[in-house]
Amino acid sequence: MATSFCTKNALSLSTTYHHHHTCTNSFLKPISRDFLVSFPKSGSFSSLGRFELNASRSLRVSAASSATPVVDQSPSKTTSGAPTIVEVDLGNRSYPIYIGSGLLDQPELLHRHVHGKKVLVVTNTTIAPLYLDKTISALTDGNPNVTVESVILPDGEKYKNMETLMKVFDKAIETRMDRRCTFVALGGGVIGDMCGYAAAAYLRGVNFIQIPTTVMAQVDSSVGGKTGINHPLGKNMIGAFYQPQCVLIDTNTLNTLPDRELASGLAEVIKYGLIRDAEFFGWQEKNMPALLARDPSAFAYAIKRSCENKAEVVSQDEKESGVRATLNLGHTFGHAIETGFGYGQWLHGEAVAAGMVMAVDMSYRLGWIEDSLVKRVDRILKQAKLPTAPPEIMTVEMFKSVMAVDKKVADGLLRLILLKGPLGNCVFTGDYDRKALDETLHAFCKS
Amino acid sequence: MATSFCTKNALSLSTTYHHHHTCTNSFLKPISRDFLVSFPKSGSFSSLGRFELNASRSLRVSAASSATPVVDQSPSKTTSGAPTIVEVDLGNRSYPIYIGSGLLDQPELLHRHVHGKKVLVVTNTTIAPLYLDKTISALTDGNPNVTVESVILPDGEKYKNMETLMKVFDKAIETRMDRRCTFVALGGGVIGDMCGYAAAAYLRGVNFIQIPTTVMAQVDSSVGGKTGINHPLGKNMIGAFYQPQCVLIDTNTLNTLPDRELASGLAEVIKYGLIRDAEFFGWQEKNMPALLARDPSAFAYAIKRSCENKAEVVSQDEKESGVRATLNLGHTFGHAIETGFGYGQWLHGEAVAAGMVMAVDMSYRLGWIEDSLVKRVDRILKQAKLPTAPPEIMTVEMFKSVMAVDKKVADGLLRLILLKGPLGNCVFTGDYDRKALDETLHAFCKS
Repeated sequence: MATSFCTKNALSLSTTYHHHHTCTNSFLKPISRDFLVSFPKSGSFSSLGRFELNASRSLRVSAASSATPVVDQSPSKTTSGAPTIVEVDLGNRSYPIYIGSGLLDQPELLHRHVHGKKVLVVTNTTIAPLYLDKTISALTDGNPNVTVESVILPDGEKYKNMETLMKVFDKAIETRMDRRCTFVALGGGVIGDMCGYAAAAYLRGVNFIQIPTTVMAQVDSSVGGKTGINHPLGKNMIGAFYQPQCVLIDTNTLNTLPDRELASGLAEVIKYGLIRDAEFFGWQEKNMPALLARDPSAFAYAIKRSCENKAEVVSQDEKESGVRATLNLGHTFGHAIETGFGYGQWLHGEAVAAGMVMAVDMSYRLGWIEDSLVKRVDRILKQAKLPTAPPEIMTVEMFKSVMAVDKKVADGLLRLILLKGPLGNCVFTGDYDRKALDETLHAFCKS
Repeated sequence: MATSFCTKNALSLSTTYHHHHTCTNSFLKPISRDFLVSFPKSGSFSSLGRFELNASRSLRVSAASSATPVVDQSPSKTTSGAPTIVEVDLGNRSYPIYIGSGLLDQPELLHRHVHGKKVLVVTNTTIAPLYLDKTISALTDGNPNVTVESVILPDGEKYKNMETLMKVFDKAIETRMDRRCTFVALGGGVIGDMCGYAAAAYLRGVNFIQIPTTVMAQVDSSVGGKTGINHPLGKNMIGAFYQPQCVLIDTNTLNTLPDRELASGLAEVIKYGLIRDAEFFGWQEKNMPALLARDPSAFAYAIKRSCENKAEVVSQDEKESGVRATLNLGHTFGHAIETGFGYGQWLHGEAVAAGMVMAVDMSYRLGWIEDSLVKRVDRILKQAKLPTAPPEIMTVEMFKSVMAVDKKVADGLLRLILLKGPLGNCVFTGDYDRKALDETLHAFCKS
């Protein structure tokens, strides 16, 4: 029985703040933004960082991946203009995540990751009118050799299928994208998953850049290389592990995000606290009003800390043979809700929120966590305006039939992510009393 | 300009002959075949080999990957029953290729590579009546915990598409294949490519075993992990690099192969001689009559030496960033023939044979090879009953339009594999006189 305990290991994961002093490369446009950078107390200067190799000088600070993030303080350190960088450490598949406001106005961030002459931007009908022109400008300004094509897909999880994926391949072949081309995902999780899978499969793999525009994509789906599409009989059944060249998170794109989408993304943020980061959970409890008010610095911190948590887990277990599965807290119950209730009724994060409540309930029934933690989870999800129970239509049978085909079933046994011990600890295990699962299902379903 | 010279590097690639002395594992069926094994002169005994770890004792000989294979001798050393093993060295993705007659009657070879409880055999309407039952027996005899399902696809390159691939996913999901399941490709190159890609994509990757039943699949497509499907606008446009757990080549399956299919596979065998193995080419010139007469020991040697050559190249360059491209000698012209003439008119190897003649012609026009080599290529292909010119329907324009979307185009420049220097040397380059390409196209096309 494989039981992975979720512990927080410090890995070679660093957060870097860049301060552009000079701009020596003619390809770089002058940047007219505020460059003030504050460095976290725990950081230390290390002369000139990697940015200098590409174009401009920078000061590099390695910090913030310690086990004790500075609560209530870090948010105020986030500045617009200079990106915060989270490095995802995966050997020769490592890549940076740039986080900051106005990053789509800094073409050099993208240029250094585009190697060939052709780019295909994959986006959808909702995002294209808002950010496609801006993205094309960011790719081409000062980069006249690059040709950008785009394909605009219908918006929504129900289009995350083979038919829509083929539209990306059709466009790529029609526009003669070659092996050195780059696919750019501009949108939320669905676009990221589909574009990433298209990049993994086209000519057996081409470059890939993620520009996530939703909280969900910024804190979860754009980190870690899971790509894929749905099959009529199951979510994400067809796909690949495929890492991007970089992820560019411009927090300004959140300004156009509907409230419900924003809350959906917060479900994943809350998840990181529950499974491995008690201090982050405490920070969220205090700062939820700021997040709901879209405070940019609060969001930049929440995104950074979420990406760091996910990057640490993915670095330990890229292909999900163990600890990575813990990122799926609430997702097995949640997928059942999404499948049973029909995609598009509830957002992914809403289903995950209800799923987390069920996983927490089951953990409590098993005697693995304190009653006080059950209450805290309920409270923070309500604060974030997320559901704390599945839709009334769900029956025990609906849960069981979908859970039977979950990807975490191994040789017939369903493994679940459950909390165990103090806040911030969880297990991924098939070694639990089946009665607790039954009791939880019956407690949350009318029939 | 990336120019990779094709040189023959000795790698950690070994050929192992196994001699079963005893059978101590109750899962193993008694084997009632002739166990006489002769060891090549160049080999050296190394007490007990890896087979002992699994079930039975074995004698291990490391040999035959030297630069000078023993011509005219090795074929007579091949025995039925004991597999010859070629190891493909790809770090943690390494795998063995078992070669021999009657290997489908040795269940233990497959058992050690099946880890979960469920197996999906992917085959086609031609192969299923011949070898499906035998394969299911090999998977289940003495292995009662394994459940085998199968999906039988229509036969032919024209079915190597997304629609057929979806049938594999449908079957896998309907039969609840989980992450620990194994997909088994039973058939030729089309089945191997599709089943391999399905295995790469299903649940983002499951175990995969190849049982190739054609010469083409045994010497080429089953080695090296290229998987994928065609797009209406181009061959193998969608796919993945995905390595199997093992390849099992039972040379008895060649007994049911049509003559034309047999010759098609020989085109790839001849290719290995041309690009990197002059002595193997010399062996082929002498032994072509034996190959055409399906002499089992001649075939076992041709397959072994081909797999070794391919394995060495793939070990150096798994993702085809350089030297691996040399395996595509004749394939760029050949793909144009297949696309222009329509899939299914000519077999892949037939198109490659004509394509190799064109590549050799162009190499000669560039002054890179001797006239005598041109003649030897023409002679051996005719001996193998393969075409030495494209079909008359092909025009210069048809070649050019298909070659423009070749996967080896980088930033608009078509790179080709051409012979350069003495037999056994080639280059992969975009640095050639365009006039020579034009002259070759006009020499082989009426308009």
